[in-house]
Amino acid sequence: MSQETLITQIRNGDIRRMSRAITHIESEDKDSIELLNQIHSFTGNAYKIGITGPPGAGKSTLANQITKLLRKENKTVGILAIDPTSPFTGGALLGDRVRMNEIGMDDGVYIRSMATRGSLGGLSKKTIEVADILDAAKFDFIIFETVGVGQSELDIVKTADTTIVTLVPESGDAIQAMKAGLMEIADLFALNKSDRPGSESFYMSLQSMLALKTKRETFEQPEIIKTVASENKGIEDLFGKIMEHRAKLIESGNLLLKREKNFKLRIKEIVRERINREIWNTERENNLESSLKSVIQREISPYKKAFEIIDQYKNEITEEKQ
Amino acid sequence: MSQETLITQIRNGDIRRMSRAITHIESEDKDSIELLNQIHSFTGNAYKIGITGPPGAGKSTLANQITKLLRKENKTVGILAIDPTSPFTGGALLGDRVRMNEIGMDDGVYIRSMATRGSLGGLSKKTIEVADILDAAKFDFIIFETVGVGQSELDIVKTADTTIVTLVPESGDAIQAMKAGLMEIADLFALNKSDRPGSESFYMSLQSMLALKTKRETFEQPEIIKTVASENKGIEDLFGKIMEHRAKLIESGNLLLKREKNFKLRIKEIVRERINREIWNTERENNLESSLKSVIQREISPYKKAFEIIDQYKNEITEEKQ
Repeated sequence: MSQETLITQIRNGDIRRMSRAITHIESEDKDSIELLNQIHSFTGNAYKIGITGPPGAGKSTLANQITKLLRKENKTVGILAIDPTSPFTGGALLGDRVRMNEIGMDDGVYIRSMATRGSLGGLSKKTIEVADILDAAKFDFIIFETVGVGQSELDIVKTADTTIVTLVPESGDAIQAMKAGLMEIADLFALNKSDRPGSESFYMSLQSMLALKTKRETFEQPEIIKTVASENKGIEDLFGKIMEHRAKLIESGNLLLKREKNFKLRIKEIVRERINREIWNTERENNLESSLKSVIQREISPYKKAFEIIDQYKNEITEEKQ
Repeated sequence: MSQETLITQIRNGDIRRMSRAITHIESEDKDSIELLNQIHSFTGNAYKIGITGPPGAGKSTLANQITKLLRKENKTVGILAIDPTSPFTGGALLGDRVRMNEIGMDDGVYIRSMATRGSLGGLSKKTIEVADILDAAKFDFIIFETVGVGQSELDIVKTADTTIVTLVPESGDAIQAMKAGLMEIADLFALNKSDRPGSESFYMSLQSMLALKTKRETFEQPEIIKTVASENKGIEDLFGKIMEHRAKLIESGNLLLKREKNFKLRIKEIVRERINREIWNTERENNLESSLKSVIQREISPYKKAFEIIDQYKNEITEEKQ
């Protein structure tokens, strides 16, 4: 089947074809770049929502509830759940099952888990590419759902148009730990499980932290919405704020600016990855590996070795061009 | 002054010269690479200890106590404190003052703060390079002290010979959040503030998490040492375990293997950074910037643009070689 036929089928809502295309992208099949090139002109319509936060904050439940509200408005939704397959978490599977019961049977919803294991470096790149396929397949909304831990996961939610950071009253320590990354990317905070003890004082301290920060750095202070996702409380409020944020982004023209910035990062990431693969071919990997002894024995310095490798790479390029 | 004279002075313990050399490295002066090249043959003797953990876990206090014990054995100590200058933390300055009162007046101790602000990408590279200077200046031990948050900070402690992850009984959530990174790098755990409520149950759950993990992945289970650093409790025990770990590493030959692996990462990082700078010169940055509109308008895809940039870079290399 030609790429064109495939793209037509994806655009016509052929879910089986679409799933297969996604698999091609995940496994980086050689045709996948051409597919992404061609599909690019059919993207840009889906609105992307990122949901992140510490484990156990109720991200999946929130994503489900938001999906239900979107479905009420007849919007189709693709959910990309980035699953950090850690030996410590057992929650993923259970969450998936609940999810499937609630929204999985709905034709207007497509759910896909993206596993981090083994592909950590390129995960954000791949997730964005998979979102392109969903976008071309005319899903109105795409939800990225990910634990806000590693750089890779943060990179994913950064590409969302609206990013929600989900916290729970017990997250005090987690915030401290993750503030560097998480605080900066939030357009909205969902204070989930807000019926638990300590919720009010947590709300106050989060408020004052944000006030301090926004005062210093002069950007708009993100709102905190109290939710109890499991009881469907506060979800309509949160949903309203998402739509408000979206309307503001579109009106002000900032949506396009944000997306331009994301394309910039994305192009840089492609360049970085390509060049990295070319440099670290088997030959140079082996060369480096076998020279480590002489670095340890102080016969050659790390910089000298690095420059040697770079020179070798450049000679190769020159030879190829001739 | 020639590089050789500078290096001789550094090796002879001229702290003022050493500090100046460190500043050169931090600001990436053009001579700094040559300095690092030449100093490489005088490195490899210092033993590196990494201390990481969530904010407020008592890393500085632990580092101070360990330093005091090392001084009792007449060992010299360099401390590199990586300070994530976040608007949310105010602890750094206070910690520094306490530190200076306790150990700062001792000639056998050198303390340097490395700021993350503005240099995030290259921070781990620079810290390792600064450690080279301390190493050549014949400091017996180098302690890296850093918040275990970002990838960059984790990269730093990874280069230590012995890495201690410091936790407090309240870190439950933080562990959950940071497990991906922090758990894997620990050679030892310091359960600090272990006189606080909840300490025992936290100890048990940490134990069982580690047991689960080590069972699955067949590596040695790191020990957890209970400390109350502020009251100097458990520090001798922790210190003993550090020395034990060190002796084991040396005996087994694993110290050299670990260091080889670190050199490998370090060389790759230098290559990555160099090439990245060459590719993203002002011309290509501008080229990318001005083409973002056409990417948004779907006239060119991210991959096509990325390949265009790569081709341009390669043509430049070829032309330079001719």
